[in-house]
Amino acid sequence: MFLGIDWGGTYIKIGTVGKRGKCLSKRVFSSQHLKEKEVFIKKIKELIISFKLKRIKAIGIGAPGIINTDKGFIYYLPNISGWENYPLKRVLEKKLGLPVFIDNDANVFARAESCFGAAKDAKRAVFLTLGTGLGGALIIDGKIFRGRTSAAELGHFPISLKGKKCSCGGKGCIETFVGNKYIINRYKQLKKENVSVEAEEIFKKALAGDKVALLVWKEFSYALGMFLSGMINVFNPELIVFGGGVSGAFRIFKPLVQEVIRHQAMWPQAKNVKLVRSRLKNAGIIGAALLAQDNFLH
Amino acid sequence: MFLGIDWGGTYIKIGTVGKRGKCLSKRVFSSQHLKEKEVFIKKIKELIISFKLKRIKAIGIGAPGIINTDKGFIYYLPNISGWENYPLKRVLEKKLGLPVFIDNDANVFARAESCFGAAKDAKRAVFLTLGTGLGGALIIDGKIFRGRTSAAELGHFPISLKGKKCSCGGKGCIETFVGNKYIINRYKQLKKENVSVEAEEIFKKALAGDKVALLVWKEFSYALGMFLSGMINVFNPELIVFGGGVSGAFRIFKPLVQEVIRHQAMWPQAKNVKLVRSRLKNAGIIGAALLAQDNFLH
Repeated sequence: MFLGIDWGGTYIKIGTVGKRGKCLSKRVFSSQHLKEKEVFIKKIKELIISFKLKRIKAIGIGAPGIINTDKGFIYYLPNISGWENYPLKRVLEKKLGLPVFIDNDANVFARAESCFGAAKDAKRAVFLTLGTGLGGALIIDGKIFRGRTSAAELGHFPISLKGKKCSCGGKGCIETFVGNKYIINRYKQLKKENVSVEAEEIFKKALAGDKVALLVWKEFSYALGMFLSGMINVFNPELIVFGGGVSGAFRIFKPLVQEVIRHQAMWPQAKNVKLVRSRLKNAGIIGAALLAQDNFLH
Repeated sequence: MFLGIDWGGTYIKIGTVGKRGKCLSKRVFSSQHLKEKEVFIKKIKELIISFKLKRIKAIGIGAPGIINTDKGFIYYLPNISGWENYPLKRVLEKKLGLPVFIDNDANVFARAESCFGAAKDAKRAVFLTLGTGLGGALIIDGKIFRGRTSAAELGHFPISLKGKKCSCGGKGCIETFVGNKYIINRYKQLKKENVSVEAEEIFKKALAGDKVALLVWKEFSYALGMFLSGMINVFNPELIVFGGGVSGAFRIFKPLVQEVIRHQAMWPQAKNVKLVRSRLKNAGIIGAALLAQDNFLH
């Protein structure tokens, strides 16, 4: 049995996964109090013991940042400070006496969806996790694409030369147009109100016909459609898979994004591409456990 | 012996290439009078006969457009009309009685530079041909990256949401910032003169200290650096190889582009990337002949 940890900016989800990619048991915690390294590691250790350590062969972690997967090394986490250049794999293996494997959260999501979800048998696919940030992964020749250090940071492709400052240190990245907080800020700005609102509410308001909410999703879709047209021209993917909290608004933005692609992308590459939502409920846990399983067995 | 045809917007270059990638003989023609299909094919046939057909085993062509390499099929050529959906491989093989292989000109360039030039042994490399348009190719896992139809149309990645109309039908593509005619137009616009000028002259003027010419290359480098930062974040290439006429200004734009990358790209991906000029004088002919050779032998 393998244990998967889906380490997100808001929640940390931990679960055991059986042979056919079924999540067998699951626990969810707020990430809020687990930002510090020592506290995080202590909590993980407690949890793993509670999951009956003996039956677990290896642990996989999908982490929200720039990871060197070969070395199990964190370069940095854009939204959590204090983890710069941290050898998490080595530290956890020492504490737990179990093999630990770490990858970027979007790669882990892509692994799960490729094995058991929306992208089964896809040769070339683009994966986007729409949430606080914009995570990305690529499947090329049926495998997760990797660089020598890190790669597939799709959220940090600039699509504007005069854009806003991004969490990565650059500016104009696609993330600054489609990340959760940018959607919310844009809505507040257009409404000229400083109310507390969530992306999900802006989605519901748009469905109910609220013009400002609709405009926010139109702008979101235009930016996303332009970016994806570039990805289509360069990658010729069969499939673009949308996951993450903001993909709850898929029904609203899919036709708008498709319309932008129809005008912007080159037809030989665009003609057969499909836009789909992720299929798995616990893709983060399942993908992390698969990461552990694949690395443990091979 | 294999024959390579480098089919560009300005010139058509034809040459024979020996085993070690040396161009043995070469002929160059203006493309101007060879835009029509019938004229083009007749001329190719004449030339091939003059090259002593018996010694030639196969012909390779690098074509300036969107090509389906598996089928030897032209979807379209952005700068030459009349070639839409044309089965060039089938037509030429019938006329010549020789195997013919066709690929996009930037892929052919990448093939030559990977085998004998600047990108020997590179696992992941980005290739740009800077000329009338911006051609692109990718080496992934040491091989030319291909989609199911066409791919690696790097020139048609949008980097502006409010950009100019592009030859591909989209807008804001990186090609509209760095293509030859855009550089020239920008120079004329800034000089407020309607004089005839070539990109090479703008390069020489910049070297001589002309402020307007320098500004043109700064703007060019900013756009190119932003785009390449996106490519670095996504691909983590070891190498970015610049070819094509406009790469004559490499000395001016390299340090400027590097400076943009230093600010914009994520450091784990950017720290080891090298920007280099192409090394081969006849990369187009050599790569086309290699295309023929590789496909003929395997």
